[in-house]
Amino acid sequence: MGFLKRVWYACAWTDELIDNAPLARTIAGMPLVFFRAPDGRVSALDDKCPHRLAPLSRGRITEKGIRCGYHGLEFNHMGQCIGNPHGPVTSSLRVTAYPVAERHGLIWAWLGSPAETIESTIPDLSFIDRTTPTAFIHGYLQIKADHLLMVDNILDLSHADYLHPDSLGGGSISRTKPTFEERPESLFVSWTCVDEVPLPVFRPLLPTPETRCDMWTEVEWFPNGVMILQVGAVPSGQPRQSGIDTWNAHIMTPEIKGRTHYLYCSTRNFLTEDADYNRAFGVALRTAFELEDKPMIEAQQERVGDVDLLERGPALMGIDTASVRARRVWGQRFRAEHPAA
Amino acid sequence: MGFLKRVWYACAWTDELIDNAPLARTIAGMPLVFFRAPDGRVSALDDKCPHRLAPLSRGRITEKGIRCGYHGLEFNHMGQCIGNPHGPVTSSLRVTAYPVAERHGLIWAWLGSPAETIESTIPDLSFIDRTTPTAFIHGYLQIKADHLLMVDNILDLSHADYLHPDSLGGGSISRTKPTFEERPESLFVSWTCVDEVPLPVFRPLLPTPETRCDMWTEVEWFPNGVMILQVGAVPSGQPRQSGIDTWNAHIMTPEIKGRTHYLYCSTRNFLTEDADYNRAFGVALRTAFELEDKPMIEAQQERVGDVDLLERGPALMGIDTASVRARRVWGQRFRAEHPAA
Amino acid sequence: MGFLKRVWYACAWTDELIDNAPLARTIAGMPLVFFRAPDGRVSALDDKCPHRLAPLSRGRITEKGIRCGYHGLEFNHMGQCIGNPHGPVTSSLRVTAYPVAERHGLIWAWLGSPAETIESTIPDLSFIDRTTPTAFIHGYLQIKADHLLMVDNILDLSHADYLHPDSLGGGSISRTKPTFEERPESLFVSWTCVDEVPLPVFRPLLPTPETRCDMWTEVEWFPNGVMILQVGAVPSGQPRQSGIDTWNAHIMTPEIKGRTHYLYCSTRNFLTEDADYNRAFGVALRTAFELEDKPMIEAQQERVGDVDLLERGPALMGIDTASVRARRVWGQRFRAEHPAA
Repeated sequence: MGFLKRVWYACAWTDELIDNAPLARTIAGMPLVFFRAPDGRVSALDDKCPHRLAPLSRGRITEKGIRCGYHGLEFNHMGQCIGNPHGPVTSSLRVTAYPVAERHGLIWAWLGSPAETIESTIPDLSFIDRTTPTAFIHGYLQIKADHLLMVDNILDLSHADYLHPDSLGGGSISRTKPTFEERPESLFVSWTCVDEVPLPVFRPLLPTPETRCDMWTEVEWFPNGVMILQVGAVPSGQPRQSGIDTWNAHIMTPEIKGRTHYLYCSTRNFLTEDADYNRAFGVALRTAFELEDKPMIEAQQERVGDVDLLERGPALMGIDTASVRARRVWGQRFRAEHPAA
Repeated sequence: MGFLKRVWYACAWTDELIDNAPLARTIAGMPLVFFRAPDGRVSALDDKCPHRLAPLSRGRITEKGIRCGYHGLEFNHMGQCIGNPHGPVTSSLRVTAYPVAERHGLIWAWLGSPAETIESTIPDLSFIDRTTPTAFIHGYLQIKADHLLMVDNILDLSHADYLHPDSLGGGSISRTKPTFEERPESLFVSWTCVDEVPLPVFRPLLPTPETRCDMWTEVEWFPNGVMILQVGAVPSGQPRQSGIDTWNAHIMTPEIKGRTHYLYCSTRNFLTEDADYNRAFGVALRTAFELEDKPMIEAQQERVGDVDLLERGPALMGIDTASVRARRVWGQRFRAEHPAA
Repeated sequence: MGFLKRVWYACAWTDELIDNAPLARTIAGMPLVFFRAPDGRVSALDDKCPHRLAPLSRGRITEKGIRCGYHGLEFNHMGQCIGNPHGPVTSSLRVTAYPVAERHGLIWAWLGSPAETIESTIPDLSFIDRTTPTAFIHGYLQIKADHLLMVDNILDLSHADYLHPDSLGGGSISRTKPTFEERPESLFVSWTCVDEVPLPVFRPLLPTPETRCDMWTEVEWFPNGVMILQVGAVPSGQPRQSGIDTWNAHIMTPEIKGRTHYLYCSTRNFLTEDADYNRAFGVALRTAFELEDKPMIEAQQERVGDVDLLERGPALMGIDTASVRARRVWGQRFRAEHPAA
C-alpha cells in the first residue's frame, strides 16, 4: 500500500548516532543516511551518491558534511555538493536532504516536502526529557512485520494477559472494558481497572504482592507510529497521585513493506535512582518485547502474508475497536497524501 | 500445479508429537497445527487463529483443546471456539479441523472435505505394528525438492548402484529388468535378481560376504506419497522364506511447492533384538538418505527449476517407466479433484 | 538484459580444477561443469544430465569422461554418452559441450556456436606465463554485483584515492586527466602522472617514501570482461624502463544476473624471488579487493537494483567517460548477437 510521508518519523535514538559513524536506516521505504557533523548538527540525506549510487553511509563524515567513500564527492547537510575532486561542482551533483529534528532523545525526519514541515506534529514525549538516567530504559528492535500489526499489539493490551502472563499480565486488562476517544491528531484508549489483581511487575512494589489495586492503562496512538503508554497502580481506593506510575513510548516506524523499526522506552516515578532496579526492569521489558511479542507478531505476519490483515477477513471483536479505528485514521491520512490511489 | 487434497497424508511420526507441545507442520500447502489432548486424542487444525491469524501452534494445549498464545481464544478438537476471554463465543470464531487418524506409528490427516473421508485408503503399513523396537528404524527429513522427484528416486532404485554404491548398491538392480503392475489404488514395481552380488549392507549377514544371492526388491507407490519397499536376499537357489528380509516405508508428503516431508522407516526379520545392530543400521540408512539422496535430489531440483521435470524434456529410458506411470496416475487424480484445471 | 555468448570467458584459474574433482561454475547464466580427464584435457559440459537433469558436477571423473552420480550415465568430453548401464546409448543421451582453452593459467570457455570459435580473441595475458611463482599473486572472489559495475570500478581508478587510500591511493590518479583510445577489440585508458606522490604500496620500494615519482597506469578492457592493468613508478624524470612495474589482470566474468566471478592476478618486475614480499603483497591486494571493493560495489548494486546503472540517471562526470564507452561497445556486441532485442 505504501507509507505516509507527511509525518515526522522517529528514526533512531540519539545515542545510536555515534560520532564519526554514519548510520544507514531505511525509513518508510527510503534508504537514508544519518550523521552528526562536528558542530553537532544531525543531517538526513538520501543514502545514494548521485554520481554512481554508492551508499553515502559507507563514506566518511567531514568538517562540513559527508564524503562518498567510492569517488570522494562531498555533500553538506543540505545535500549540496561542496567538493568534487574530479571536476566542477554542478547542479546535478546533489542529493535530497530531509528536515531533521532532535527531540526527546530521538532523531526525527520529515519525508514529505520540506515546505510542508509542521514541526509541532512531533508528539509530546517530554516525559523522556524529565527522567533521570537511572529511571530510563530504551531500546531498538527490528521487526519482520508490518507497522500496523505492531500498532495493533499495543492498541489491544489484552494480549499481555496471554503473551506476557508472568510480567505484564494477570487478567485485569482482559476483564476491563476500555474506552476510546478520537482526538484531533491521535486516538486515545483507556482501561480503568478497579480493585484488580496487580500486574506481576508491580507486585514487589506493593505493600504485599497480593494487594489488590486500582490500575490505569492509557494508550495514545499517532499516525506516525508513536504510541504513548501510561500504566500505573495504587492500592484499591487510594488516590491515583499516590500510586506508582510509568510512562512509556512504543514507536512503530515503518522500514520497508513487512518490516518495522520498533523503538521503545520506559520511565517511572518510583526507584528513580536505583540503577540495579532499572537494569532488571529493562531486562524484563526487553525479554517481553524480544522473546514474546516479536516472534508472535512475526509469525502472525507470515500467516497474514502480503496484504493488510483486514483483507484476510479476521473475526473482529470488541478488543479490536481501537486497531480498526487506527487503520481508518491512517487510511484517511494515506488517501489524503495519494488522492489518486 | 498444486497438490492432491482427497488423500490421507502421513504428517508426522507419532513420537514427533510431544505432550503439551503443539506441532506446526504445513501439509500440501496448508499450515496445520497438530496436538495431543490430555485424553490422548490427536487433532489437526488450521494453524491460524480466526481472530488475528496468529499461529495456534504458538499457543498452549488445554484440558479441552488449544488456547491461542496471543489473545487467549480457546478451541476444541473440532475447531469450535470454547472460550473467549473478551466477549461472546460467536460462530465466526472457528477454525477448520481436519480428520485425523493415528495408525502404524504415524499421524495422518485428510485435507479434503470431511464428508468424503474414506479411512480405508490409508495404505496398510501394519508391518510397523508387528516389529520389535530393536528392529525398527525411523526418521524424518525435510527436503527442498518436489514430492514427485522424491517418488522418482524410489521408483527407480537403479540409482542405488551409483548414489549408494557402498551400502545399497552393487549393480544388481541395474542389471535386472523390473516388472510393473498397475493396481486399483497403487503402482507396483518388482526387481527379481537371480544369483547376484548381494547389496553391501547384506554381506555381513551371509555365510560369506561373497555369497551370491537371489534377491527381491518390491516397491508399491500410492498417490498420497506412501511407498512400501520390501528388500531381501537368500543364498542363490534357497527358498525366499528362509532369507533375510526388510520392510520399509518411504513417505513423500508434500509440504509446499518445492518442499517435501520425507518420513522413512525400516523393519526386518533378522537380528530383531539387537539394539546395537539396529543403531548401526539406522546410521547407515540415515547417511544414505541425508548425505547422498537429499543433496542429489535438491541439486536436481535446482536444475529442473519451477516446473515439472517432464516439461524439461528429459531423455527418458526404460528405468523411468514407473515414474512416468506414477505421474500419470497422480495427474488423473489431480484432474479429478480439479475438473476445471 | 542477458550476456554475451560469442566471447571466450575466463572461468577459473587452472589450479582451481583439482584432479578427480569436477568444478561446478555458472558462466553467463549457463550452469557448467569443468573437469580434467586423466590425460590432462579439460572439458566443459552443461551441468545437467540429459536423463533427469541431475548436475553432472556431483558425479565422478572416469578414464574417458564423467559419470553421473545419480544413475550412472557416462559422457565424454564432447558430451556424447559413452555408457548407459540401463539400456542402449541413444542420440538423445547427449549433453552440450563447450569449446575450452587452457591458456595463461586460466580455463577459458566459448559459449557461442562451436563453429564460430575464434580462439585468437583470447586477450594476450602472456605476462602471466613469463612470471616466477614468487612474483605471482592470483585469486578469486564471487561478487554479488553486475559485471558492468565491476568493470566501472577498474575503468575509473580514481576510486583508489578514496576507497583504498592506504594502499593504492594518494590522490595522483584523481589529479591526472586520463586519455582514451578505442582499439579494434578493446578500450584503452591511460593516466600519466608526472612528479606525483607515489602510491602507498610503492613507497617502501623507492629511495625514500617521500620520493616523488612519474607514474603510469594503463587499463585495457575487453568485452569478455578481461581487463589488463599496468601500473608502475620511477623517481621523477628518470626513464620508465628503470622503474618498478606491475602487470595485473582483473577479470569480470558474469555468473548470473547480479553476480560476477572476479578473477584477479598481479605480477611485477621487482623482488621477483622474494616469497615473503609476494605473500605480503598478496594479502594487501586481497584486503583491498575483498574488504574495500567488494562491499562497496555490492552495496552500490543494492541501490541500483534490478536495472543497469545508466537507467537510474546517475550524474556522470569526466571520470565516467571510459565506463560509458565500454557500455556502448558492450551493447553493440550484445545487439549484434541478439538482432531482435
